[in-house]
Amino acid sequence: MTSPDPALLSINTATLRRQWTLPQIVQGLARHGIRGISPWRDQVASAGLAHSARCIREAGLSVSGYCRGGMFPALDAGGRAQARDDNRRAVDEALAIAARCLVLVVGGLPKDAQGRPASRDLAGARAMVRDGLADLIEYAKPAGMPLAIEPLHPMYAADRACVNTLAQALDLCDALAPDDAHSLGVAVDVYHVWWDPALEAGIARAGAGGRLFAYHICDWLVPTTDLLNDRGMMGDGVVDLARIRGWMDAAGYRGQHEVEIFSERWWKTDPDVVLATCKSRHASAS
Amino acid sequence: MTSPDPALLSINTATLRRQWTLPQIVQGLARHGIRGISPWRDQVASAGLAHSARCIREAGLSVSGYCRGGMFPALDAGGRAQARDDNRRAVDEALAIAARCLVLVVGGLPKDAQGRPASRDLAGARAMVRDGLADLIEYAKPAGMPLAIEPLHPMYAADRACVNTLAQALDLCDALAPDDAHSLGVAVDVYHVWWDPALEAGIARAGAGGRLFAYHICDWLVPTTDLLNDRGMMGDGVVDLARIRGWMDAAGYRGQHEVEIFSERWWKTDPDVVLATCKSRHASAS
Repeated sequence: MTSPDPALLSINTATLRRQWTLPQIVQGLARHGIRGISPWRDQVASAGLAHSARCIREAGLSVSGYCRGGMFPALDAGGRAQARDDNRRAVDEALAIAARCLVLVVGGLPKDAQGRPASRDLAGARAMVRDGLADLIEYAKPAGMPLAIEPLHPMYAADRACVNTLAQALDLCDALAPDDAHSLGVAVDVYHVWWDPALEAGIARAGAGGRLFAYHICDWLVPTTDLLNDRGMMGDGVVDLARIRGWMDAAGYRGQHEVEIFSERWWKTDPDVVLATCKSRHASAS
Repeated sequence: MTSPDPALLSINTATLRRQWTLPQIVQGLARHGIRGISPWRDQVASAGLAHSARCIREAGLSVSGYCRGGMFPALDAGGRAQARDDNRRAVDEALAIAARCLVLVVGGLPKDAQGRPASRDLAGARAMVRDGLADLIEYAKPAGMPLAIEPLHPMYAADRACVNTLAQALDLCDALAPDDAHSLGVAVDVYHVWWDPALEAGIARAGAGGRLFAYHICDWLVPTTDLLNDRGMMGDGVVDLARIRGWMDAAGYRGQHEVEIFSERWWKTDPDVVLATCKSRHASAS
């Protein structure tokens, strides 16, 4: 398989969140000749939305996504209304920074005030996700901001996202935006879906429907020592990234390849080394 | 929902592996009036197969399963032949202790001599699993030992089992034993499948096909601090065990409810307290 086009590389700002501010990340990307970025809301807020948008625009970066909206389930109507309002602000911010899509981590079981799961009703949480998505489309679609559902690994079903397979995300897309592939699609993150025996079929289905909005890469380490912050650099784990990229290509995806690595190890590494490694591994191992 | 029949409670010996030998576990079950057991091979081997079988038989315990066969993928034909021979011995042992089924954890990516994944070919590993199962059925079926494929949580896809959903396991059953529900079925362990949006449908499909051979219970903790040994006691986590038992009941499952908890916490607890807690939580929270 040939190496991917280096121009498609994008860096999710979570990858460098401990080392650099958003403006520092933008400068770093320029130094390394990397053309894409995907910012997180808290990092944008720290630098200021207008300033962040200007930095990104002046650097000529493509914004492969904005992280993140979602977190729809809540114990009561007040909590769900808060989530609705916050998601609308996320849409506005995504527009301000000219993101390709707003990435949605849909949320898990409703939580109590201390952030602990306060329900075992997974089907109920999934119904809240569906309702929340339906509502958010009404806001995002006229604004012209595509929404990308990111199925998360099943190990996050309780606390982060109860949409856990690509097929489940695509069923939501078909139900909520049946004739409109521009408003609702998916973000395919290899960390979350690499294990799925239906992955190739799901990518093909998403491509045929025009719903492949984003592609996130990193690697699955063996052993994985932490459920949250032990993701691997491309090539350091067991995911056949070239094969999955081939499925994305065959399905018609022509967008960026966004590196998103939550890792205590890489957060402790010189950020210029991290970026140089992302570049070289994008070329050699993805 | 009514409480389950206490006579259906079975204890997987891994739950007490740090505290007690197999004969001690059998004695403990008798003291607590628990009627079922599911032994692991290493614990049986430590006590001796004949002695273990006699202890279990004399205590009048039902053996809900034997753990475990599987681990089919290997780097070369020699490794796969070793797995074949070892699986045949596991069938023989399961027969000796009169187990309801031999539970199969099918294995992940082929490993090198140091036990590290030596391939990224997940589809290839799945093909080896299929071939290994096909071969093992030829041995187990005439011997009269049902084989139960246990789909494992996707977080174990690389290193323990590349069969990760109930649907995937049932597809294997239909392909390899299309007209014979007695020889090949599934073990449904809530820890591995609770998150699956297709779980209810999968259980119904398995029941309709006569392939529900075993049901394992524990709980999913939030947060989960270790990928291997932080499983929860029923009621301490987020799994709606009563709902899933309802699906099993509705699908015609009448077998035992086997408690299998890998947990540093419960391994440090007085084993009589563990058994008493299993009994009370089986009644109140499963």
